[in-house]
Amino acid sequence: MPRFALRLEYDGAAFNGSQRQRNAPSVQQTLEEAIARIGGAAVRSTFAGRTDAGVHATGQVASFSTSATHTPQTWQRALNATLPESVAVTAIAEVGATFDPRRHAVSRRYRYRIWNATGRAPLERRCSWWVSVPLDVPAMADAVGALIGEHDLASFGGLPGPGRSTVRRIDAVSVVRTGPLVEIEITGSAFLPHQVRRTVGALVELGRGRLKPQQFERWLAQPVPGAAGPTAPAHGLCLMQVMFRDPPFGDDCEGRGTT
Amino acid sequence: MPRFALRLEYDGAAFNGSQRQRNAPSVQQTLEEAIARIGGAAVRSTFAGRTDAGVHATGQVASFSTSATHTPQTWQRALNATLPESVAVTAIAEVGATFDPRRHAVSRRYRYRIWNATGRAPLERRCSWWVSVPLDVPAMADAVGALIGEHDLASFGGLPGPGRSTVRRIDAVSVVRTGPLVEIEITGSAFLPHQVRRTVGALVELGRGRLKPQQFERWLAQPVPGAAGPTAPAHGLCLMQVMFRDPPFGDDCEGRGTT
Repeated sequence: MPRFALRLEYDGAAFNGSQRQRNAPSVQQTLEEAIARIGGAAVRSTFAGRTDAGVHATGQVASFSTSATHTPQTWQRALNATLPESVAVTAIAEVGATFDPRRHAVSRRYRYRIWNATGRAPLERRCSWWVSVPLDVPAMADAVGALIGEHDLASFGGLPGPGRSTVRRIDAVSVVRTGPLVEIEITGSAFLPHQVRRTVGALVELGRGRLKPQQFERWLAQPVPGAAGPTAPAHGLCLMQVMFRDPPFGDDCEGRGTT
Repeated sequence: MPRFALRLEYDGAAFNGSQRQRNAPSVQQTLEEAIARIGGAAVRSTFAGRTDAGVHATGQVASFSTSATHTPQTWQRALNATLPESVAVTAIAEVGATFDPRRHAVSRRYRYRIWNATGRAPLERRCSWWVSVPLDVPAMADAVGALIGEHDLASFGGLPGPGRSTVRRIDAVSVVRTGPLVEIEITGSAFLPHQVRRTVGALVELGRGRLKPQQFERWLAQPVPGAAGPTAPAHGLCLMQVMFRDPPFGDDCEGRGTT
């Protein structure tokens, strides 16, 4: 039975998160319904990363197996014609029968956008968090260095489940200002629930002078579950890319198809 | 009676155009209602440029006079607290009693965004026109050179009103590709109805090989009212900046407040 990997872009505002759930539209359910309509049989899809309600993606990766004999190109075209305008398949590849995007992903890259200006920006409101107090971006960029490497990140995230480790590896973090836009990118092995949003929330507290760098470092050295925050709003966050040892779609790094 | 100039950013999807009309929400009506609520009296506002339903702005300029004695800063803060999230005042300045943003504007700059990729991009859908056929951007950039200067642009726009001239001056045009994004910028003295969208529509026809450059030039040399097009969709267009001999807000060129 052929198995496919899909790269998905979606507008998080249209969904109650990536994962299927009762009584609320999810990306997973929307995708599975489209696959069923095209392939003629119910399927179960697997996602590389779970995104919360409101969180966007340009590089989510999902996978499904099907007995339908369409080519990858036919699947992509048919899915994009069937899916609502809030979600699209931006790449597709046939993969081995055992491909599991969640377990085979080696790292994920997230981007958080902050609109840091005294005034609201109506055209930015859907994809960035408006913070009106000027942020000390160099101080924020200094602080994130401590995150690199393997740490118990319990302070910065929700609990992953009873008895499960809260140690995660962070490979890269950056905080960059371009005019009023401040972008925070974090690449890591895997993430605890709300980890990026709590990290961003803590960095914004630091950038506006309400949190000392020493406290930020203490949360890393002496973890207190869920102590860091607040949780930054979902709509500023985007899952940009999921990385694999054997990239199913080649190595396009922005998580988006060009022409 | 004090008079103020405002720079406005708005999400065109939320309005049936900039100009007040019966039975449909406009930016002008929304602004005037907010001013009346704050100032306690009905006012009439004037806009530098008329934008169609669905067209966005980061640099629209409006003006109004008021007998209320608030400072400019108080007006800006109160307006942004009163206006819906789809529109914001990004700059304010007190101006002379005779300031007329429409008549005193010396030029306007528009930007049109095209998402040129085989696949849809859900996160780009609100602010760009999706064109799936690959566009020959160098050919488009070659063609726009002919637009520079003073021309009878009747082919590229609607009629401005009985007996009124269709001659307009275009100061600058550019067509630039950045990955899948193609941006067309046009700066000119003033614009005929739908002029930017018809120009973009014609350029896309040219870029996909369905229109000869000679025909594009002929529309300039021998105007046929409304011949060029089709009219590109409104949601790809944004009024970026209105320029004045004496800039009311200083010279910030992106039409947006920073911190």
